[in-house]
Amino acid sequence: MSVESGIQDFTEKMTLNDGKEDEDDVVDPWNVQSKNKTGVDYDKLIKRFGSSKIDQELLTRWEKVTGKPIHHLMRRGIFFSHRDMHTILNLKEQGKPFYLYTGRGPSSDAMHLGHLIPFIVSKWLQDVFDVPLVIQLTDDEKFLWKDLTVEETIKLARENAKDIIACGFDVENTFIFSDFNYIGQCPGFYQNIVRIQKSVTFNQVKGIFGFGDSDVIGKISFPATQAAPALSTSFPFIFGAKKLNCLIPCAIDQDPYFRMTRDVAPRLGFPKPALLHSVFFPALQGAETKMSASDPNTAIFLTDTPKQIKNKVNKHAFSGGRDTIEEHREKGGNCSVDISYQYLRFFLEDDEKLKTVEQEYSSGAMLTGELKKLLIETVTPIVQAHQQRRAAVSEEVVTQFMTPRPLRFMNQ
Amino acid sequence: MSVESGIQDFTEKMTLNDGKEDEDDVVDPWNVQSKNKTGVDYDKLIKRFGSSKIDQELLTRWEKVTGKPIHHLMRRGIFFSHRDMHTILNLKEQGKPFYLYTGRGPSSDAMHLGHLIPFIVSKWLQDVFDVPLVIQLTDDEKFLWKDLTVEETIKLARENAKDIIACGFDVENTFIFSDFNYIGQCPGFYQNIVRIQKSVTFNQVKGIFGFGDSDVIGKISFPATQAAPALSTSFPFIFGAKKLNCLIPCAIDQDPYFRMTRDVAPRLGFPKPALLHSVFFPALQGAETKMSASDPNTAIFLTDTPKQIKNKVNKHAFSGGRDTIEEHREKGGNCSVDISYQYLRFFLEDDEKLKTVEQEYSSGAMLTGELKKLLIETVTPIVQAHQQRRAAVSEEVVTQFMTPRPLRFMNQ
Repeated sequence: MSVESGIQDFTEKMTLNDGKEDEDDVVDPWNVQSKNKTGVDYDKLIKRFGSSKIDQELLTRWEKVTGKPIHHLMRRGIFFSHRDMHTILNLKEQGKPFYLYTGRGPSSDAMHLGHLIPFIVSKWLQDVFDVPLVIQLTDDEKFLWKDLTVEETIKLARENAKDIIACGFDVENTFIFSDFNYIGQCPGFYQNIVRIQKSVTFNQVKGIFGFGDSDVIGKISFPATQAAPALSTSFPFIFGAKKLNCLIPCAIDQDPYFRMTRDVAPRLGFPKPALLHSVFFPALQGAETKMSASDPNTAIFLTDTPKQIKNKVNKHAFSGGRDTIEEHREKGGNCSVDISYQYLRFFLEDDEKLKTVEQEYSSGAMLTGELKKLLIETVTPIVQAHQQRRAAVSEEVVTQFMTPRPLRFMNQ
Repeated sequence: MSVESGIQDFTEKMTLNDGKEDEDDVVDPWNVQSKNKTGVDYDKLIKRFGSSKIDQELLTRWEKVTGKPIHHLMRRGIFFSHRDMHTILNLKEQGKPFYLYTGRGPSSDAMHLGHLIPFIVSKWLQDVFDVPLVIQLTDDEKFLWKDLTVEETIKLARENAKDIIACGFDVENTFIFSDFNYIGQCPGFYQNIVRIQKSVTFNQVKGIFGFGDSDVIGKISFPATQAAPALSTSFPFIFGAKKLNCLIPCAIDQDPYFRMTRDVAPRLGFPKPALLHSVFFPALQGAETKMSASDPNTAIFLTDTPKQIKNKVNKHAFSGGRDTIEEHREKGGNCSVDISYQYLRFFLEDDEKLKTVEQEYSSGAMLTGELKKLLIETVTPIVQAHQQRRAAVSEEVVTQFMTPRPLRFMNQ
């Protein structure tokens, strides 16, 4: 999986670079790489993918329609791109139903801070819109791409589900499922998968994902499995036979799946799913490095102790500061490459405080050590609170979340 | 589906001809075609596929091991080729368990006489060996290949199941399933499908089935779905976690699926499935013609009335007789191209009588009209008895056969 990706981190080789590696960033879930310390050029990605920028007009309308303040991950451009979000706001205005769909590829039980981002936003979206949420754990995909057994990926899916549940989802409005289990529990889901498989050729997945003739047939057909939850009839116990709109918060590297889904859905009589795209969560060493479960120093994991967090940040978080204190005081630090500052953009909710930090670090008034200290003080309680909530998630609760059943939607 | 195929009639484009169309028969389930009135050259197929001829030695051993007479469809070479049948007989000798697997692609509810052949032999195999039988109805495959909806193929599968049940299977030892339903009922089945999908590349299915880049991804991954029932853990409620041998009676055009399965199974820790291959069932117009549900005169359907059967045979059954009675009396008829005689080989159980017919028709003592009369008298009661048994199959009984449940195997 791509540990850069905060959201659904499937590992397909995708040609998001459209053959433009020389001039553009390489955005491929195994090797999200930018030549720039500031990371991927997301404005260029919006143009290449043909999506829309999340602009102030959308955010203003969003707050107006929902009557609630926008999330800091939205207003800071961490979710920076969308498709058809205005359609979703129209539905909200009209009191019409829709649902949320997100997911995760469970290739490791070592989830890190970045993995929380999509679930933090999904929980906020669920609170704001009061709609059902389905969360797909693609254990089948991880089995196909990784050197893991079926049993191992199913186990990882269940472990990951505990971290997801610890984000505070409402059990009455959230269904979490593992493909390996759920496909065997609901004929309607498999039927939609095959409907999609009938609508997409090998040429198309070759163009979209870069599959080749030597790829196994499971990889070639997998995109249909990630597309199917965007068809509401994949969950008959929640939505009955209704063909509802769906909003998918995901990392931008997942967009190819949903471009494909948006192409297919209308041909099957469903609305195109709407999308919210996030940026990638950077490694401690900086935006050009890949976070990896095999190198624990590349990320802050949800299992880290306060001491580990402190050491990792102090030792490994790439600094945008100057070589000497004197030079730093004189010229100031560079927030756009400083990982401590970048992490604060994700986790320090207080806009005023973040602005002050940005000004003080840029001016040289704040030193790297002070910035790192602030990051440590900010994320340590977040990780500790997560650990406490996760420890409280019993096997019974996991089973409850993962059992196909009606959600609150059906009672409305 | 290939209505030529008496057994599993999936419609994949298969390159059974191995690029040798100029010299060899074209054996492609849509266009099984031979340049010869006597049909496909099966000895050549055995060489091309690398299977083994069902010879007298095997049949003698078979009768010895089972203590029961061999079926006329076996001893007449209608089942003409096998893989590893001696392994199955070894298991029988040792009192070790195995199971039977066959299937059908439900693209039409117009089943004809030829469609009965695999089920007649499967029932006999079940009686002789007293082992569980699983029958796959590939509604998903028919949905992918045909202009049919999911709902239509599921309905056709259930209708076909009634004809299959009417062959007299033991409900305590037979499980009939539709992919569209059963995949959604048993996680173990889907897990095996994905295990197989991880073991086969696009290059391989391209070589085996002739798939191309413009084929939909559902077709490309489907071979894994037909392979999975050959892994006993696809039926945990019957076999638990046991990895058992499996015997598959099927038409020779299905062999590519099971060559692939035999390649994959050992890599997943399973024995290679054994196979029994049948010839194709000819159309009334002769071995070069395709039977078709859209041309009811090409086949005797299981729904035909005695009058329809009589008319079809008299009007359409290709005759190996001579142009005039005088010439026929003098030179005799040609049994090898005469469809009435060929059908009698399938349905006239009495060896002595068949031999007499062959001698008298070949000598000219028997005329075409007399031969046709004998065929009509032979198949009409078979079709009528089938219709009576099918009418007695209630929806409850169908549901019982199609419900995942333990079979007698588990009680042994």
